Amino acid sequence: MDASDDTGATAPGAGTPEPPAPRRTKKLVNAPDEVVADALRGLAAAHPRLRVDPRARLVVRTDAPVAGKVGLVSGGGTGHEPLHSGFVGPGMLDAACPGAVFTSPVPHQMVEATRAVDGGAGVLHVVKNYTGDVLNFRMAAELAEEEGLSVRQVVVDDDVAVSDSTFTAGRRGTGATLFVEKIAGALAERRAPLDAVADVARRVNDASRSFGVALTACTTPERGVPTFELGPDEIEVGVGIHGEPGRERRALAPARELVETAVEAVLAELPDPVDGPVMALLNGMGGTPLLELYVAYGDLVEALELRGVPVVRSLVGNYVTSLDMAGFSVTLCRADEEMLRLWDAPVETAALRWGR
Amino acid sequence: MDASDDTGATAPGAGTPEPPAPRRTKKLVNAPDEVVADALRGLAAAHPRLRVDPRARLVVRTDAPVAGKVGLVSGGGTGHEPLHSGFVGPGMLDAACPGAVFTSPVPHQMVEATRAVDGGAGVLHVVKNYTGDVLNFRMAAELAEEEGLSVRQVVVDDDVAVSDSTFTAGRRGTGATLFVEKIAGALAERRAPLDAVADVARRVNDASRSFGVALTACTTPERGVPTFELGPDEIEVGVGIHGEPGRERRALAPARELVETAVEAVLAELPDPVDGPVMALLNGMGGTPLLELYVAYGDLVEALELRGVPVVRSLVGNYVTSLDMAGFSVTLCRADEEMLRLWDAPVETAALRWGR
Repeated sequence: MDASDDTGATAPGAGTPEPPAPRRTKKLVNAPDEVVADALRGLAAAHPRLRVDPRARLVVRTDAPVAGKVGLVSGGGTGHEPLHSGFVGPGMLDAACPGAVFTSPVPHQMVEATRAVDGGAGVLHVVKNYTGDVLNFRMAAELAEEEGLSVRQVVVDDDVAVSDSTFTAGRRGTGATLFVEKIAGALAERRAPLDAVADVARRVNDASRSFGVALTACTTPERGVPTFELGPDEIEVGVGIHGEPGRERRALAPARELVETAVEAVLAELPDPVDGPVMALLNGMGGTPLLELYVAYGDLVEALELRGVPVVRSLVGNYVTSLDMAGFSVTLCRADEEMLRLWDAPVETAALRWGR
Repeated sequence: MDASDDTGATAPGAGTPEPPAPRRTKKLVNAPDEVVADALRGLAAAHPRLRVDPRARLVVRTDAPVAGKVGLVSGGGTGHEPLHSGFVGPGMLDAACPGAVFTSPVPHQMVEATRAVDGGAGVLHVVKNYTGDVLNFRMAAELAEEEGLSVRQVVVDDDVAVSDSTFTAGRRGTGATLFVEKIAGALAERRAPLDAVADVARRVNDASRSFGVALTACTTPERGVPTFELGPDEIEVGVGIHGEPGRERRALAPARELVETAVEAVLAELPDPVDGPVMALLNGMGGTPLLELYVAYGDLVEALELRGVPVVRSLVGNYVTSLDMAGFSVTLCRADEEMLRLWDAPVETAALRWGR
């Protein structure tokens, strides 16, 4: 009879081998609980046009508040970089509040960001649809309004994979956040009033849908081992950006088939007209090299062409990530002319940068 | 007595277990031998300002040749994206020739690229110091000159980790390639003559040194398993961008210590003055998330500050990669005023983009 204690551990030398310990993921960090502050120190050093407070977890445009301009604030758990801190700057966000890894920032951060960017024209909060984020941003808006600030909020919920997921009531917010922040940010830069900026943000969200596929899990610095287990030949179809379960597990297949699955899922829920032009984001989850993302983007354009859907703007790269997860997501936005003009407007952030 | 056949495989139920088969890496590709062409199709679809021939493996600015401008051509094995194709465009390269994965392009590609970008002012080849690349570019230059074209070449050899490595006589060419292509590209854009463009390229290379650290190996689509083995807690210090061995294997350590090792190695071989200002590239190897790269960048700036070395320009991200390898490299360039002005000049490519 083998000896084992009541933790279920097997004594050395017993006949039944222990199940292998999950393989630890090597991380380029210092102390795991310092990773957010350490990364923000690096961000500050690399981007002198950002005002960064690593302890208070605030990233603000150096020229904020901009008088007469609607301020844009977003935020969410750390681990999705460059979202949101990499999108702070002229033409996009005025401030970002990063939370702990995969954890909502707290209302206090959001209020401080709101104050910091209020130039007298009000502030728009861009909130991804996760329960913690939604509740905390709602509380922050109430607190800010008690101080006399005008706040509107738009909740981004573009991920069609599941309704009601691990951290969410309704659809999750993922890749469309980038489109919302860029387009609303450009309208705010033109000194449009708060309601107009909130309205375009809502319209971009309504016009956008996303779907993701994980080839591997991701590993948070705190845990050190993958957040879930995928078999050596298994993928998670419809995965969330924290590794939340999607629609099904399936065997790994060629990129073309995975992209096809994503395109079907997104087009099925994209607003009409079915052959209307789209903006396309082929987004990497953080661990997939650019080479493979371009392979998938070629497949995406082919899948859309076959269905008569023209792609009028595109972006390929790691923008809304899940730490070191391998995989990709597809976001399509049925953009109107105004959205395209605002997309094309100049932007000057760490992660998106173009002039005109 | 256990039964085993002479392949060394152990019969089921025998006492000695087989060594585990190397874990296959899941790849977002179609056929492995189509990965270069597939990725180039995606690149073409995403970037209408590039003329891409996926079969001939050529990526050229749509407006090439630009009359009176020195043409810049680079190239090398695929697997280091965005290098070089992502650096083609106004202000940087005129053309790139990608080879097969981790394999030099062939002279025929280079000659075709040289012809395509010759605007009457000659062509500069930027060549990373790997034996195959150097020989093939040399042959291409001879062939192009037989056709009456003027060609100069600069060989980039910035990696201080080892001299004479797996594929190289002398130092390997890595991160400095980005500095060389950006700065020489900007000078060419100002219509400087061929010898001046070649000269600044050479001076940037001479002023730059790099050092890389791998936390994991990388996996080529063809092989499907890691190109080398690293233990679960082991790193390769001084790794090359194809996974070539470096100076030593060591246990994983905090980011700060790894960066410290890289900084020591680079500063030891950087030209004087020791406290002169530098441009810094904190480069990801492809599989390390941006969050961790910013942690390392914070540590890099701190290490340089301690030594009194001011950082006057910086770049953080995945630029000169090794497929899905986790890890980073540090490149420092002791830039003079002219180099800094040229670095700041506008650039319009897939991977680097800024106006002024």
